[in-house]
Amino acid sequence: MERRRSSPDSPPEVELELQEKFEIPYPEKPQPITRDIEDEFSRRDYYNNHHEHEGGEEIESVEQIFESREVPPWQSQLTFRAFIVSFILGVLFSFIVMKLNLTTGIIPSLNVSAGLLGFFFVKTWTKFLERSGMLKQPFTRQENTVIQTCVVATSGIAFSGGFGSYLFGMSEAVAKQGTMAKSPKDIKDPELGWMIGFLFVVSFLGLFSVVPLRKIMVIDFKLIYPSGTATAHLINSFHTPQGAKLAKKQVKALGKFFSFSFLWGFFQWFFTSGEGCGFKEFPTFGLKAYENRFYFDFSATYVGVGMICPYIINVSLLVGAILSWGIMWPLIDERKGDWYPADTPSSSLQGLQGYRVFIAIAMILGDGLYNFLKVLHRTLFGLLHQLRKNEPVVLPVAGNNKNPSNGSPPLSYDDQRRTELFLKDQIPTWAAVAAYVAIAAISIVTLPHISTNFDDWSLASTYGKLAIFTIGAWAGAEHGGVLSGLAACGVMMNIVATASDLMQDFKTGYMTLASPRSMFISQVIGTAMGCVISPCVFWLFFKAFNDLGVPGSEYPAPFALVYRNMSILGVEGVSALPKNCLMLCYAFFAGAILINVVRDVMGKKWSQYIPLPMAMAIPFYLGGYFTIDMCLGSLILFIWQKINKAKADAFGPAVASGLICGDGIWTLPSSILALAGIQPPICMKFLSKRQNVRVDKFLGS
Amino acid sequence: MERRRSSPDSPPEVELELQEKFEIPYPEKPQPITRDIEDEFSRRDYYNNHHEHEGGEEIESVEQIFESREVPPWQSQLTFRAFIVSFILGVLFSFIVMKLNLTTGIIPSLNVSAGLLGFFFVKTWTKFLERSGMLKQPFTRQENTVIQTCVVATSGIAFSGGFGSYLFGMSEAVAKQGTMAKSPKDIKDPELGWMIGFLFVVSFLGLFSVVPLRKIMVIDFKLIYPSGTATAHLINSFHTPQGAKLAKKQVKALGKFFSFSFLWGFFQWFFTSGEGCGFKEFPTFGLKAYENRFYFDFSATYVGVGMICPYIINVSLLVGAILSWGIMWPLIDERKGDWYPADTPSSSLQGLQGYRVFIAIAMILGDGLYNFLKVLHRTLFGLLHQLRKNEPVVLPVAGNNKNPSNGSPPLSYDDQRRTELFLKDQIPTWAAVAAYVAIAAISIVTLPHISTNFDDWSLASTYGKLAIFTIGAWAGAEHGGVLSGLAACGVMMNIVATASDLMQDFKTGYMTLASPRSMFISQVIGTAMGCVISPCVFWLFFKAFNDLGVPGSEYPAPFALVYRNMSILGVEGVSALPKNCLMLCYAFFAGAILINVVRDVMGKKWSQYIPLPMAMAIPFYLGGYFTIDMCLGSLILFIWQKINKAKADAFGPAVASGLICGDGIWTLPSSILALAGIQPPICMKFLSKRQNVRVDKFLGS
Repeated sequence: MERRRSSPDSPPEVELELQEKFEIPYPEKPQPITRDIEDEFSRRDYYNNHHEHEGGEEIESVEQIFESREVPPWQSQLTFRAFIVSFILGVLFSFIVMKLNLTTGIIPSLNVSAGLLGFFFVKTWTKFLERSGMLKQPFTRQENTVIQTCVVATSGIAFSGGFGSYLFGMSEAVAKQGTMAKSPKDIKDPELGWMIGFLFVVSFLGLFSVVPLRKIMVIDFKLIYPSGTATAHLINSFHTPQGAKLAKKQVKALGKFFSFSFLWGFFQWFFTSGEGCGFKEFPTFGLKAYENRFYFDFSATYVGVGMICPYIINVSLLVGAILSWGIMWPLIDERKGDWYPADTPSSSLQGLQGYRVFIAIAMILGDGLYNFLKVLHRTLFGLLHQLRKNEPVVLPVAGNNKNPSNGSPPLSYDDQRRTELFLKDQIPTWAAVAAYVAIAAISIVTLPHISTNFDDWSLASTYGKLAIFTIGAWAGAEHGGVLSGLAACGVMMNIVATASDLMQDFKTGYMTLASPRSMFISQVIGTAMGCVISPCVFWLFFKAFNDLGVPGSEYPAPFALVYRNMSILGVEGVSALPKNCLMLCYAFFAGAILINVVRDVMGKKWSQYIPLPMAMAIPFYLGGYFTIDMCLGSLILFIWQKINKAKADAFGPAVASGLICGDGIWTLPSSILALAGIQPPICMKFLSKRQNVRVDKFLGS
Repeated sequence: MERRRSSPDSPPEVELELQEKFEIPYPEKPQPITRDIEDEFSRRDYYNNHHEHEGGEEIESVEQIFESREVPPWQSQLTFRAFIVSFILGVLFSFIVMKLNLTTGIIPSLNVSAGLLGFFFVKTWTKFLERSGMLKQPFTRQENTVIQTCVVATSGIAFSGGFGSYLFGMSEAVAKQGTMAKSPKDIKDPELGWMIGFLFVVSFLGLFSVVPLRKIMVIDFKLIYPSGTATAHLINSFHTPQGAKLAKKQVKALGKFFSFSFLWGFFQWFFTSGEGCGFKEFPTFGLKAYENRFYFDFSATYVGVGMICPYIINVSLLVGAILSWGIMWPLIDERKGDWYPADTPSSSLQGLQGYRVFIAIAMILGDGLYNFLKVLHRTLFGLLHQLRKNEPVVLPVAGNNKNPSNGSPPLSYDDQRRTELFLKDQIPTWAAVAAYVAIAAISIVTLPHISTNFDDWSLASTYGKLAIFTIGAWAGAEHGGVLSGLAACGVMMNIVATASDLMQDFKTGYMTLASPRSMFISQVIGTAMGCVISPCVFWLFFKAFNDLGVPGSEYPAPFALVYRNMSILGVEGVSALPKNCLMLCYAFFAGAILINVVRDVMGKKWSQYIPLPMAMAIPFYLGGYFTIDMCLGSLILFIWQKINKAKADAFGPAVASGLICGDGIWTLPSSILALAGIQPPICMKFLSKRQNVRVDKFLGS
């Protein structure tokens, strides 16, 4: 679920995927190139930390521990119970990811919680069967890997499906917030049918495209795939006796905070009868701060997210919030009537909202461009270096910078055994090629029917965001370029995301001795489930909450507007922006690049204190409320680590996952209540002193 | 501060004082008679628990530890710094006690916090001086005892002054809630002048009356005085090295929760612009439950009180709240129009409010009468037994039931040394007698001037409550018997309270080798300070909060109405009660006695699960909201004890004290803000779904 780990902003993470795919050490320095934002996002991953001091797998042999346990054939790794559990967890995580998509777009790594819950469910089930003497097949780590793969694939679609970004950006709800591109040809409202079809076609393209690359990437290049490696560590540790004991405790902590978070969500619900009611409108720092969207909104989800995200992300968000809502917007607001007409509605992009959205876009694009060029440069340089020296590439294991030797080391026991099993079950290349051709053919036939403007898209461009501009500009305004741009972005994101997922899974499979064949089938089944589950979950949200995508509502879906406006920018250019907005955009675009340069030039020691432009941009549009939550989460973890570092490291991710999952799952009953038309009984309202006097008089009379 | 420990209800604790004064073992059983309600209230006292397993002072000699330290002469025990600290703490605790008086009347033991803070202040001060080389006199446990005595005496007046009961019961604010006794002759509004005068006269009567009894009680009878003993243990422990270390940690915990509680009070304030606003009106369990006064009012004070009070008290309160507001009042409400006129205002004693108040009074009186008779019986029986056997009375030390022998044991080292020092500094009996006569003379001259109806009061009756009835009935309605009854109650309560305080202090002094002479002077100064501070603090509340004494407000002063109506009952009889109310009162009066009988007949094993009628009666009038707080406090302590019993026992009282003190001290700035006319900026309002729709429409137009 790597992609989710690197996505406080969505477009740049697409690049990060690829960066990871071609992970090659930077020749001048022994430092692995993961050490940048991508790494910042994953640094807090528990199992990376946890295994850091073990010195990697070269030193302690994991496979010797598991030597006595038989590896089942690939057919036996794919059990029915595994897919039942995967389906349940897939629905669960689809809800959570969807909620995150639609509230802020910040989606932390849910790897640990998925792993823990998957292990917990099957373990409980097999234990129950074992006691009643009905157990036919014991629970192996290979089966566990199958579940993890399937769950990650399923819930991955909830993110790469773009329900919070490109796909929802096509809808009327988002379109009507701007002034441009509001004609029917630029709008496509979500519907269950075409969403499922679209996802099926584009998701499977990615899957089949990476199968031939499998052996080269995992065995020959020994690429590290930090997420896949971490998942493998996680699963391996579950199946050792101490690991199982720890996992049991972690599941308990997760369950406790899951219940708390769920009940807290339930409790909050009672007080939200009507708009502006409830805890999420609590003016914690006063009404003035509330107007500038600085308040603690009591969201257990984002406290949990804050606990998982590294400190620098939370600090960046806070800095961004203060810079924008604390300084810039109030200043621009004073220019009202000069820079933009004083009578523009607050949600119009011609007014203050325009500055918010476009400056955020400028920063995201600046950051994205810089990182794209950096990755490109390093990749090319690395490949060149490799070809020239013509020696095997030994990549450092995640978190372990000590490269044992410069030459080619003898293959360790672990690697020998893993390679042997990895190469046993081949996926016939002809099958992959045949499937690829078949799907490509189907997609060429079906995609144009979704929108008449899809006929001119190309697979040549690599990234979603580039796709938005290229395709949008290519199609042009009169052919509905806005929709084309968004759809192209979706195609790119899906292909890249599923492809990358599968490569990660192959790495996980390699390290847990799960057959690549079972990995592949699991990924296929998971992707198929995701293509059905995610649109359904989104559909539930869409039908249950009428104000989906409305700024300031519970589900503002911020990136939907951002993506749509990127696409409009690509098609229409920058002519319609309010006064001085373009100038500010240039400044922030350049600023984002500059900050990145400074971060790279400075040593690790100083760069860790420099905020990330990408994270700073998110509150520009949304405000600081979720930042307060996340900083609280950081603070809790910080204090916890001060008190008991070992415990905080072991249980922090479990507690955070519990908070995120409980609150996320509460959205299921809450949306059902909303669909059934059941309104909460109480409104917790916050009135100013003056308003209160008026209201008291009104209610008294 | 024993009286405060035994006072979820005020009148019966007066008896408990006396019971303690003549504490003689029940002849048939070796179980000390403290094992009843009195004991229930003190059971949780930290130092009692803490020293329980040390086997009492007979086994480990405390005085041998302190042997090397010189005991300063009595003049040196009375330092200037001691009284400065006492004054500061006296003001602090007067605020806290006043707040408790005026909100529910439940006042837990603040012994531990007073001890900790007194020790902390002087220790910091002397350490600071020591470092700068200016320390003339080290901090001894005798000086600490002086401070403790003085603080307890000062803040004790805030309770026995009756600002939440008899004294405020004379005011118009309370009188106008009833229909009877509303003529000017039955009303005396609080004024600073007469309150201070009244308190001075009655408080000092008690002080001088016990001086002659000193030696008999403490040395000859070896009465245990659990509160005095606990205080002595506390102070002795502070002055051992480990004790000082623990105390430092406890002070830190206290300080942490003090700050939290204070800041929480401050935070809450911002949301209370107007009536029905803020956290204290939070309909935690829904609006229906809120109407029946079941909600969590976010009061740090009562969460802390719940942590100090024993579980059975909290359970009794909850049972009482459910029985009354959950079952009885809704049922009686349905009889509206039959049992009482449907158009009576909700606060009228002719309506539902009458049932609430009078049934509560009946239960308190039933419980009080039972306990009075029980104590009387046991005291007489015990004295008789003692006279017949003619042997010295060896009383078990609090918490230590193992009576080492039935005969007269040899005097321990501790007892020898303590007795020696206790008898060194005599207070001349002639001085006590002279002072007593002088004050009695002054009071006979001055008291009648406060109200013209005070000329016929008598010192013969012993208890405040009995005084209310006796004097009220004696004076009769036409002579303003209501005021006479309340004033007589005040005289009784003050005399008994101060007298009992002094006896406790003598015991503390005996055990810490503080001179009885310095104890006495400290008590005199403390009482004098209390007679000035308490009325001033009350005056501040009275002026700052306009709705003092109004049911349902922030400071309902529940016992003011209860006491006033007791007095009216004594004067006017029971004729004016609504239909069936008298019958219900009889039933609950009998019920209270019955429950007490059952409690006494059952063994300790079962009786601890039977609720206390006295505690049950309090929510009858007030509702369940503070009960919820207290139960939460209990729950927190319970869970804490489950996790780490030693830590919970050592730090629970400190945390609870922090919560109580912080919130209590917040009332000082909050009343100053109210006096200055500064209103909070925000109103957190709770509206029903229907109201909210109306309000939104109103605010929108």
